[in-house]
Amino acid sequence: MVSQVERDYAAYVSERGSRAGDALITDPTASANYISFIYGFPDSESLPAGSVTETTHRVLTENPIWALQYGAVNGPKPIREAILAKLKRDQGISASMDEIIVTAGSSQAIQLITHLLVDPGDTIIAESPTFLGFFDDVRNSGAHIAGIEVDDEGIRVDLLEQELVALREQGVRPSFLYLLPNYQNPTGACTTLERRKRIVELAEEFDTLIIEDDAYFDLRYEGEALPTIYSLDPNGRTLYLGTLSKTLAAGFRIGWVVGPAPIIRRIASLKTDGGTNIFGSFIAASWLPEHFERHVDELRRIYGQRRNLMLSALEAHMPEGATWSVPTGGFFVWLTLPEGIDSGGMLAQAREMGIEYLPGSACFFDHSGGNHIRLSFSFARDEVIDEGIRRLGDLIRSELAESISG
Amino acid sequence: MVSQVERDYAAYVSERGSRAGDALITDPTASANYISFIYGFPDSESLPAGSVTETTHRVLTENPIWALQYGAVNGPKPIREAILAKLKRDQGISASMDEIIVTAGSSQAIQLITHLLVDPGDTIIAESPTFLGFFDDVRNSGAHIAGIEVDDEGIRVDLLEQELVALREQGVRPSFLYLLPNYQNPTGACTTLERRKRIVELAEEFDTLIIEDDAYFDLRYEGEALPTIYSLDPNGRTLYLGTLSKTLAAGFRIGWVVGPAPIIRRIASLKTDGGTNIFGSFIAASWLPEHFERHVDELRRIYGQRRNLMLSALEAHMPEGATWSVPTGGFFVWLTLPEGIDSGGMLAQAREMGIEYLPGSACFFDHSGGNHIRLSFSFARDEVIDEGIRRLGDLIRSELAESISG
Repeated sequence: MVSQVERDYAAYVSERGSRAGDALITDPTASANYISFIYGFPDSESLPAGSVTETTHRVLTENPIWALQYGAVNGPKPIREAILAKLKRDQGISASMDEIIVTAGSSQAIQLITHLLVDPGDTIIAESPTFLGFFDDVRNSGAHIAGIEVDDEGIRVDLLEQELVALREQGVRPSFLYLLPNYQNPTGACTTLERRKRIVELAEEFDTLIIEDDAYFDLRYEGEALPTIYSLDPNGRTLYLGTLSKTLAAGFRIGWVVGPAPIIRRIASLKTDGGTNIFGSFIAASWLPEHFERHVDELRRIYGQRRNLMLSALEAHMPEGATWSVPTGGFFVWLTLPEGIDSGGMLAQAREMGIEYLPGSACFFDHSGGNHIRLSFSFARDEVIDEGIRRLGDLIRSELAESISG
Repeated sequence: MVSQVERDYAAYVSERGSRAGDALITDPTASANYISFIYGFPDSESLPAGSVTETTHRVLTENPIWALQYGAVNGPKPIREAILAKLKRDQGISASMDEIIVTAGSSQAIQLITHLLVDPGDTIIAESPTFLGFFDDVRNSGAHIAGIEVDDEGIRVDLLEQELVALREQGVRPSFLYLLPNYQNPTGACTTLERRKRIVELAEEFDTLIIEDDAYFDLRYEGEALPTIYSLDPNGRTLYLGTLSKTLAAGFRIGWVVGPAPIIRRIASLKTDGGTNIFGSFIAASWLPEHFERHVDELRRIYGQRRNLMLSALEAHMPEGATWSVPTGGFFVWLTLPEGIDSGGMLAQAREMGIEYLPGSACFFDHSGGNHIRLSFSFARDEVIDEGIRRLGDLIRSELAESISG
C-alpha cells in the first residue's frame, strides 16, 4: 500500500493537468506587511464596506429568495441589466441580454475563452509584456504566444502586421489577439485611436478574433476616453472583457464577457460552475445604479493623486539611466532600468527592506525583461509611497554599483 | 463584410469548444410559476436571509478590507478553517489546510477535476442514473461514461467489478469512479457500508481514483450517518466533494474538494479564476460556526416532513404499476413507471397542468430511462405537494390509458 504522501499522482493526470503543474498559491493578505507595489490590488481604505452592507440589507429584505437560490449560469437578469446599462452609459457599448455572460472576474472570462478557442499547439498573439494572469491559461492550454512589442502608443501595429504575415506564411491563423488597450497591464500604455482602428482592420484581414481586456476603463486620470475596440469593430470579431474588481470590490469576483450571442452561448456551455456568485450578483446589481458613479469619481481622485505621488517620488529617487512610463489611467508605472539589472533577483532584498514590487520578467511569457519593474501605485497608502520609492532607489543604486564593480 | 449575426463562429472554436456546443440556458426563477418538483433547489422559505444580513454586517465591520479584496485561489484561510472544522465534527474527516480547495459549488469542483484527470477518449465510471450536472463536463472533456446500475443499496459493486475487469481486458484504466454514496441524485439510494468498503478495494485493485460527491451529507432524515468513502480509503485515492448550496445557500456558490495535497495544488493551477466568491467566503466562514448546526436541524425537520408528504401523496395518487424509492435523506424520490411511458414527452403537458418534474432520461448519459421521473421534494411548499402529485397521477393515468388504447 502506497500512502498518499508517497503516491505519485502524475500517472493519473490529463495532458492539460500535466501542463498545469503545481500551483504557486500566494496569500494576498501578506502584502499588508510591506510598502507594497506588487499587485494590482484596489486601495483598501476606499473599499465600499458601508454601502455594501446597506445594499446587502436591502437586497435580502426585498429579495430574500433569489439572491440566495440557484441562478442562471450566464448571470441573474438584474446584474446583466445593470452591467449593460453601465456599458451603454460609460463605454458607449450597446449589447443585448444574450450578448453578455457574467464570470468570476475577467480571470474566469480569459479561462473560458481560452478553453473555447485554443487547442494545444495553437498560437495566440499578445502584447509583450502583458497581464501575467493570462499566462497560466496559455500554459494550461498548450498554446504558443507570439509577443508584440508595446510602446507609448500601445501595441506596435506594424510589428503586429509583420507577425500576422509571418504566421500566414506558415499556415497559422492565430486563435486570437489578446489586448489591453487602456492603461495596459503592466506598461500603463494607452493604445491610440489610430492603432485601435488598425487592429480591427488586421483582425478582419487575417481572419482572427480579438479579446479586449478592459479592466481599467473607468480609472482614467486625464484626457478623454477612447472608443473601445469592440465599438470600432463592425465584424463581430471582438469579445469585450470587464470587471468590477477595480471599482466595486475584487472580492465580489464579478466580471463579464460581451460578444456575439453564439460565442456567449458556447462560453455558457463550458461554464459548468452553476453560475458566478449569485448572492454577490444581486448585491452588485443593486449597488451599481446607486453608488457606482460617485464611487468611481472618488477612486479617480485617490488613484490620480497616488499616481502623481509615485511619479514625483521616481523623479526624486531614481538613479540616472532609469526611465518610466507616465500612465493616464490604471494602476501601473513601468520602470526600465539599465540592462544587466536582475529585478527578480533583487526582490528578496527588497522585502528585507520592507518593500515589494513585481519583477518585469513576470510579465513576459519567456521570462525576459529582467531589467523592468512593474510598480503598482493602487495599493500603497499615499504617505508611504515616497518612502517606498526612496528605498527602491537605494536598492537599485547598490545593485548598479555592484554590477559596475563586479 | 460578414455581420456578426451571419458569421459562423464554428471555424474559430477549439475541439473542446466544438464538443460543448450551444448551452441551454435556463432561468431558475421560472420554477416559481409551478408546483415544481424539477430541480434540486433548497426550500426558499427557510433560506437564512436574516442571519446572512447580520453576518454580512458583522464581517464588513470587523474585516472591511480582506472580505472585499483579492483572495487566495484555494479560498481565504477563514473559510477553509471553518469547512475543515465542520468536516471533522460532522463527517469525521481530518484534513489539513493544504488538502482543501474552495470551489464555486461542487459544480466547479467536478469541472476542475475533469480538466485535471480526463483526456478525450478516456473512460469515466459513474452510477447510472447519476447527477445530470456531471454530463456537461463529461461531454466537454470528450470522455466516455461506463454506467453502473444503482439499486436500493447504492451502486451495484458486482457490476462495477465486472466493468473494471472488462475495461482492464481492453487495456483501459478509467480516469475515476464518480459516485454519490449518500441519498444519490437522482435515485435517493444510500450506498451501504459494505459496498463503500468494496469500492475502496476495487479502486486500489484496479488502480483508479474515486470522486465522492457528497452534497446531501447533512440532510439525513433517519438512521445514522455512514462513514464517507474518503474516511474508509487509506490509499489517498479519494477526492471528497461537498457544498454549502443545500445548507447555507446555493447563491453563495461555495463548495470544496478535499484530497491529497499534490492533487489540490494541481487543481489550484487549473483554477484560473482569481478565487471563489471571496466576499461570500468570509461571510460563510463567520456564519458556519454560529448558525450551521441549528439551521441544519431546522432543514432536516422541513425536508423530512416534505419527504413524508410526498411519499404519502405517491401512495394516494399513483396508479398501479408505479413504484418509487424511499430515500433516507437528500432531496429526491425516484419514480418508476411502466415501460413505454415517455416522461420527457409528458413534460409540456405537465407544465400546462401547473406542475414540473425532471424526466428520468435527463439522468442517464445515453438518455435512456424514459419511464423514470425524478421528483424533488425540496422546493415545493408542504401544502401543494399532495395537489402536485395528484395532478401527476392524473397525467400518468391518462398516458397509460392512451398507450393501451394506442
